[in-house]
Amino acid sequence: MEVLRITRPGGPDVLATDERPDPVPGPSDLLVRVRATALNRADLLQVRGHYPAPPDVAPDVPGLEYAGEVVAVGPRARRFKVGDRVMGLVGGGAWADLLVTHEREALPMPEGFDFTDAAALPEVYLTAYDALVLQGGLRAGETVLIHAVASGVGSAAALLCQASGARVVGTGRNAAKLARASEWGVARTVLCEASPPRFADAVREETGGRGADLCLDLVGGDYVPETLEALAPQGHLLLVGLVAGARVDVDLGTLLRKRLRLTATVLRSRPPEEKMALAQSAQRHLLPLFRSGALRPVVDAVLPREQLREGLERMARNDSVGKLVVRWA
Amino acid sequence: MEVLRITRPGGPDVLATDERPDPVPGPSDLLVRVRATALNRADLLQVRGHYPAPPDVAPDVPGLEYAGEVVAVGPRARRFKVGDRVMGLVGGGAWADLLVTHEREALPMPEGFDFTDAAALPEVYLTAYDALVLQGGLRAGETVLIHAVASGVGSAAALLCQASGARVVGTGRNAAKLARASEWGVARTVLCEASPPRFADAVREETGGRGADLCLDLVGGDYVPETLEALAPQGHLLLVGLVAGARVDVDLGTLLRKRLRLTATVLRSRPPEEKMALAQSAQRHLLPLFRSGALRPVVDAVLPREQLREGLERMARNDSVGKLVVRWA
Repeated sequence: MEVLRITRPGGPDVLATDERPDPVPGPSDLLVRVRATALNRADLLQVRGHYPAPPDVAPDVPGLEYAGEVVAVGPRARRFKVGDRVMGLVGGGAWADLLVTHEREALPMPEGFDFTDAAALPEVYLTAYDALVLQGGLRAGETVLIHAVASGVGSAAALLCQASGARVVGTGRNAAKLARASEWGVARTVLCEASPPRFADAVREETGGRGADLCLDLVGGDYVPETLEALAPQGHLLLVGLVAGARVDVDLGTLLRKRLRLTATVLRSRPPEEKMALAQSAQRHLLPLFRSGALRPVVDAVLPREQLREGLERMARNDSVGKLVVRWA
Repeated sequence: MEVLRITRPGGPDVLATDERPDPVPGPSDLLVRVRATALNRADLLQVRGHYPAPPDVAPDVPGLEYAGEVVAVGPRARRFKVGDRVMGLVGGGAWADLLVTHEREALPMPEGFDFTDAAALPEVYLTAYDALVLQGGLRAGETVLIHAVASGVGSAAALLCQASGARVVGTGRNAAKLARASEWGVARTVLCEASPPRFADAVREETGGRGADLCLDLVGGDYVPETLEALAPQGHLLLVGLVAGARVDVDLGTLLRKRLRLTATVLRSRPPEEKMALAQSAQRHLLPLFRSGALRPVVDAVLPREQLREGLERMARNDSVGKLVVRWA
């Protein structure tokens, strides 16, 4: 099979096509022919040599999500059959003609979705669902602060909040991108051009002075102290990314006074049982929302495979709104 | 009734006896004659003018816990009768001959305990139970890192861990005080004389490299970065105090990589429904452990009422091990 591999650490131009032996499914695995994949900031970090793949996947083939067709199943696989259309997350290796995944980590594609729609869903919706619903206990009536709301995860999170009866205040650094946020049901946007950013007053205004119940933070860095100000008593900061940096000076007194919680979370490094549990939970709770139309892919562009590198460059420039999808085959 | 009141912000010498009208119990309240109380660092802060009382209690009479006798009950109170021996937490005002508390915030004194034993229990055990069990989900087999393990909350938390089948690594800044820790079942102590403190290697050694599942932190400040190093993947830092300071430089990358959680928590500012819920939960889960002897008061000294000020000075010098109890009447 053909893969796109990292030849050395660097920019997108270090990626080159290569031939690899076809992977062989284990007893409970699916062999999937990749029809579409999508780009993630983690891919960009991995290409640069800053984010090594987990030990159980090829170290030099990026790609964290896919949509495709089942072309073979292991002897103990029961949930899917050859020809089924599936989508899902993998620890790496999705920029390839074929991949192997445990059948309990794969999700059936929503009916009526094509491969490029479906490839835009797994990373952003599983991240948002896991953080907001499973870890944050998102409930109707709450107010959620979402940083980088025009990003892939940000826009998916906003739609998930809307579908769940929660209100969203979204931040971003680009006025043109933020202007799109009403499409995802965002009640109020705050443009954050300065550093440190200022959004706590806006959040308090939107909540009658109370603050946000949850914050989904893809940004970290100097957004964190202001986020602690913006949270309601017993508010919960769900940290899923560090685009603005990892070092931060925190006032623990604010945390204590408001009894705040902070949960830092990533999907990629999780053990298989947790990845399976997340996929199974998403099948019950997210798939119906795709079917109903409450959740939908937010796609910046669908690129042909030959333009994957240009897509990464676009992502690095922070120009995209929603997902960059790649039609693989 | 006689109370001890703060005449102006300052050291323990600003406390003076005063006369106040006897409090009147509401429909579901108990009127309690205080027989013993105990000292807390929060009292010291309040006397200095740094920790104002919540709005529903007298601003100038400290005292957060008591043991005493019920001398009157409101017309709708059903759980206790005149003559019952009770103990509990209050938002303030326990340094007084009488106090009023909602009957669902009071606990029956364990059988066989005298008033000075019982007055040593509420703050430390409710704090440790709420943080470790209710918020941290403490379970048998876990390893818990407890900072300031020779403090009142620290020693109570260690005994609670022992009673729950969990293993404790305890830190402290005083070798003589740490030497007592084996009495509370602490498996290993780490003396932290330098700043920043170093204990992560010891925790890893005790856990086969894995790190601690929970940390109960009364200290904050520069203990926090090292605590993040000492925690296991998905470990949970329960922050209940800031003796070492509130500002801290945190590496969010460590939090993210290990999927850590941080929960900051205080009891005093909670609304009544939460205080009642905690007392009721403690009645079910802690009282049996006092009866069985698994949990016990850790008392540094029982002082007569006239020496309460000296007790606060001793607390300010960090000389005490466990609780400073005051025999009130």
